[in-house]
Amino acid sequence: MVEIELPVADELTQQNGFLHAGALLAALDSACGYAALTLMPARADVLTVELKANLLAPARSGTVKARGEVLRAGRVLTVCHGDAFEVVGDEATHVATVLATMIAREEDPAAPTSLD
Amino acid sequence: MVEIELPVADELTQQNGFLHAGALLAALDSACGYAALTLMPARADVLTVELKANLLAPARSGTVKARGEVLRAGRVLTVCHGDAFEVVGDEATHVATVLATMIAREEDPAAPTSLD
Amino acid sequence: MVEIELPVADELTQQNGFLHAGALLAALDSACGYAALTLMPARADVLTVELKANLLAPARSGTVKARGEVLRAGRVLTVCHGDAFEVVGDEATHVATVLATMIAREEDPAAPTSLD
Amino acid sequence: MVEIELPVADELTQQNGFLHAGALLAALDSACGYAALTLMPARADVLTVELKANLLAPARSGTVKARGEVLRAGRVLTVCHGDAFEVVGDEATHVATVLATMIAREEDPAAPTSLD
Repeated sequence: MVEIELPVADELTQQNGFLHAGALLAALDSACGYAALTLMPARADVLTVELKANLLAPARSGTVKARGEVLRAGRVLTVCHGDAFEVVGDEATHVATVLATMIAREEDPAAPTSLD
Repeated sequence: MVEIELPVADELTQQNGFLHAGALLAALDSACGYAALTLMPARADVLTVELKANLLAPARSGTVKARGEVLRAGRVLTVCHGDAFEVVGDEATHVATVLATMIAREEDPAAPTSLD
Repeated sequence: MVEIELPVADELTQQNGFLHAGALLAALDSACGYAALTLMPARADVLTVELKANLLAPARSGTVKARGEVLRAGRVLTVCHGDAFEVVGDEATHVATVLATMIAREEDPAAPTSLD
Repeated sequence: MVEIELPVADELTQQNGFLHAGALLAALDSACGYAALTLMPARADVLTVELKANLLAPARSGTVKARGEVLRAGRVLTVCHGDAFEVVGDEATHVATVLATMIAREEDPAAPTSLD
């Protein structure tokens, strides 16, 4: 499991003062990608094929903890799920859940991208 | 149709120098949200219920154009689709496609969020 | 939690003899819908707004158990997740995972559909 | 583009007499899968990696036309989108839209599944 913390900063909020979906998804996508990478070959690189998120509640303050975990690691594709929580003091609110598909890519800058 | 332009800046890239999925999704989510808002009641506000993206190719340079459009506008829910293109000079590459569900929320700061 | 069992019958398979995605999704959608219904008002009816599935492994024989659970129950929308397992004797294989958004609809045949 | 027609038969409906999401998704998944197959190598087989659908309106009668089209064909993965319409006489109603990721699999019964 990989966990990324993201403070709910003003410059990341939308019109209501809630953390923008883009910021939340960036943290969740990264957490899922790194989780996938832990089970890939040593020299592999990881790219996101697709990602689906449900936003469950707005994150307004404190810190967001975005967690990614591998559901199924295949030779080519790795499926991950992730969850994000707004943590304010002792209280954690479940703010988003994601499913994502990751693909292994050879770590060679001249290689075609793993989406090819 | 709403279009948002996002330059592929270095501070928005991931380990391969490709635009991070989070930045791409922020632009697509905003384009879909504003598209949905154009068909909502005058005082309504819009929140993202859920979003699903397929990343089709990496965006490496130039500008990303993220377009959002309404597929179906309901009383409560609006379904949008969006597409993002990397534009470098005259060439446009399709880099991502999304489906998103948006919900109308009364524009009253004391109102419960539209996810309630 | 709601669990639906579906035997892997020949008439539900695709070209490789694997259970067709449509059959698997029918079971998962129903399990999630009934799970959502358990937390809705007494006279409410439930409709699927959207559903996203990752197929993790083929189901070839035995019985599929499709489980649905509520992640977040709101006034209007309920978010569910579900998982399906191929069960052959003592062995269970995780074959699919879903996220779904359900909406409550008044149980009145003349009412507009909850997608309106 | 691949189009599959499915009559709205009573035995495929849910509690409101609407076509069950499972039946609709079976048709859309098949249309997308066959569309992907048209651009894969001659001996390849196709499997669904993941699929996401938004249900836009209920299908109550007539025939459903499910169309699948390739958005991007890669060496390994093919991304498709699809749309379903309820057709009654001259009227067509847009009832669902999907995004799906398909994977090519060697047509060899002893081969590992393309999800491996």
